[in-house]
Amino acid sequence: MTVSELGEHALLARIMARLPRPGAHILVGPGDDAAVIEPRRHHRLVVTTDALVEDVHFSRAWCRPADIGHKALAVNLSDLAAMGAIPRWALLSLALPGALPVEDVEQLTEGLAALAQVHGVSVAGGNITRSPAGLVVDVTAGGEVASRRWLTRDGGHPGDELWVSGTVGSARAGLEMLAAGDATDAGCVARHLRPDARVRLGVAVAKVRAARAAMDLSDGLADAVRQVAAASGCGAVVSAEAVPVDPGARRWWERRGADPVECAVAGGEDYELLLAVPPRWGGRLRNVRRHVAAPPLTRIGVLTRDGGLWLERNGRRRAWPEGFEHFRE
Amino acid sequence: MTVSELGEHALLARIMARLPRPGAHILVGPGDDAAVIEPRRHHRLVVTTDALVEDVHFSRAWCRPADIGHKALAVNLSDLAAMGAIPRWALLSLALPGALPVEDVEQLTEGLAALAQVHGVSVAGGNITRSPAGLVVDVTAGGEVASRRWLTRDGGHPGDELWVSGTVGSARAGLEMLAAGDATDAGCVARHLRPDARVRLGVAVAKVRAARAAMDLSDGLADAVRQVAAASGCGAVVSAEAVPVDPGARRWWERRGADPVECAVAGGEDYELLLAVPPRWGGRLRNVRRHVAAPPLTRIGVLTRDGGLWLERNGRRRAWPEGFEHFRE
Repeated sequence: MTVSELGEHALLARIMARLPRPGAHILVGPGDDAAVIEPRRHHRLVVTTDALVEDVHFSRAWCRPADIGHKALAVNLSDLAAMGAIPRWALLSLALPGALPVEDVEQLTEGLAALAQVHGVSVAGGNITRSPAGLVVDVTAGGEVASRRWLTRDGGHPGDELWVSGTVGSARAGLEMLAAGDATDAGCVARHLRPDARVRLGVAVAKVRAARAAMDLSDGLADAVRQVAAASGCGAVVSAEAVPVDPGARRWWERRGADPVECAVAGGEDYELLLAVPPRWGGRLRNVRRHVAAPPLTRIGVLTRDGGLWLERNGRRRAWPEGFEHFRE
Repeated sequence: MTVSELGEHALLARIMARLPRPGAHILVGPGDDAAVIEPRRHHRLVVTTDALVEDVHFSRAWCRPADIGHKALAVNLSDLAAMGAIPRWALLSLALPGALPVEDVEQLTEGLAALAQVHGVSVAGGNITRSPAGLVVDVTAGGEVASRRWLTRDGGHPGDELWVSGTVGSARAGLEMLAAGDATDAGCVARHLRPDARVRLGVAVAKVRAARAAMDLSDGLADAVRQVAAASGCGAVVSAEAVPVDPGARRWWERRGADPVECAVAGGEDYELLLAVPPRWGGRLRNVRRHVAAPPLTRIGVLTRDGGLWLERNGRRRAWPEGFEHFRE
C-alpha cells in the first residue's frame, strides 16, 4: 500500500503507534497542533534541526528505511552532544513521495524510535506532507544543559589542544564501499548507515567543563578544525600521524593507492566530537575518560595564535585540506 | 549566481546577515551546532514544525521567494496560536536545488525575517542542505504559554459553541484564481500567498481561558471541525448560513456555479482559529474581543453528544464535507 492510498490521518496513526510513550515532561505530545514541554528549572533548552534528503544524504538503493530513521535522529543528537546538551525531545517532519510504501514509513519511524528510546528522547510531535520528488526527513531535537555549561565552537584559545573522539574516515569509506558494490568492511558500512552520536561524551565534557570549544564531525574533521579555529580566532596545526584513521578505512584507501589521512580528514559523516582543551584542563579530561570509556579520545593537534591551518607530517607542513562542503558538487 | 556556485558557508553568511538580531533569551543563536534558549520560569515551551514543499504547497510560478519565507513561518505561528502560545523563536531548515538563484534564498529569508520581527520571534538556528528536486522550507517554531493555559483540540464538551475567526475560503479561492491566471480578487490572492497567523487572538484566548478547545484551519474548516469533534469525543452541527465565507471567494464560486459554502468549508490554508466555547464562558470571549478587535469571531455551530457531523442549511442536515487531506490527490 502506498502513502497515497492510505491517506494522511491513517498514516499519522500508524506513525504514532510506533513511537515510544512520551516522557512525563511532554505535557502535550503528538497529535495536537504543537508540543508542550516543561524543561527543568535552572536548565537551558537546546534545539537543533537537520534534514536527510534522498539522493543527497542517502540512497534508498542501500539504506533501509530503518537506517534512514536512525540516522535522521542521530545527526541531530550529535549536534546536541557537541553542545554538551542532554537530549530530551525531537520533532519529526517528513516529506514523502506519494508512491512510497507505507511499510517504509513505518520502518523509518521504528528506526528513529529505537534510537530515541536508547537516549531517553521523546518524539514530541512533527509533520507529514507530500513530496513530489524524493524523501526528506527533517528532525528537530531539543535538549537541556546547565547554565553556562554548554560547549560552543568559538571558545578555543591559542595553545588549546585539539582532541578527537573515536576514529575518522570510516563513514566515507563505508559509503565508497556501498557505491562500489564492495562492502568488504562491515564496520565502515555500519558507520555510514547507522552512525552513533557521542551523547554521553558530550554531556560528560560539558558537565565538568573539560573543553573550551567543541563541534561534531558531521562534515568531517577538515571542516570541524577549520570551523573551530575560525570561530575561535585561531589557527591550528594537526599532526597527520596522530589522526585516528579507522583501520578498515585505511586498508580500503591503501589498496586504492589513496592517502588514508587525506581521505579520512576530508570525509564527512563521522559524527565524532572535536574538542579544544587547555593543557591545564587535562585532569578534567582524564576524569571524563574514566566515566565514559568509549569512544577513546586522541590528541591530534593544537590551536595556534597565527591564523594558518596546517597538516604536519614528518615535520613538514602543508595546507589543511579543504574538506567537504554541501552544494559543491 | 546559483547556490552551487556560491557554496554553503557563503550562503549561510548571507542568510545570517538577513536575520533580525536574536533576543536576549537566545543565549547561543545561529552559527553553532544548536541554539541555547532560556524560557521564562513558570512558563512552558511550545514547539511545532511545518514544511512548505515546492509544487505541493506553493508554485514558484506565482509565489515570490519572500512570500514563501513569510508563509513558511506563518503556518508555524498559526500552530502556536492555536495552542495559545506566545511565539519566541524559530529554526529554519532549507533543502535547496543547486540551481536556485542565491537572490531567491535571500528574499525568502527576508520574507521570513520580516514576519519574525513583527511577532518578536528570534530565528535561533537552522540548517541548509541540497535538494535534488524542488525547494523545501521546513520551519520549527517554539513559544511559551503559562501553566495549564494551553489550548488543545481535545478539550471540547457537548454543548460547547463553535466559533471561527475571520473569514474562510479566501485562500482556496486565491489559489484557484492564480491557477486560472485570473487574479481578480487581490484579497483572496494575498490570503493564499501571505497568510496571517492569529497570534494575538490565540494568546488572548488562552490567557483568559476563553475556549475549551482550539485548532487552526491549516487544512480548512471541514478538517478542523472534524478533528476537534473527534478529539473531544463529540459530534458537531454547523449552520451553513453562519459560515463567514469571504465575499470575494463567494463571488468567485458563484460566478462558476459552485456552492460557496461547500467550497469554503472544504478549502485549506485559511489559518483562522476554530474555538469550542461553553456558552457560560461568553463573557470571557467578549473580553477577548474587546482586546483583540480583528479578526471578528463568528458563532457557526455547536458540539453535540452524538458522534455525527452535520452541515445544517434551511433546517435540513447533510453529512459534513470530507475536506482536504494530504496525499489524496
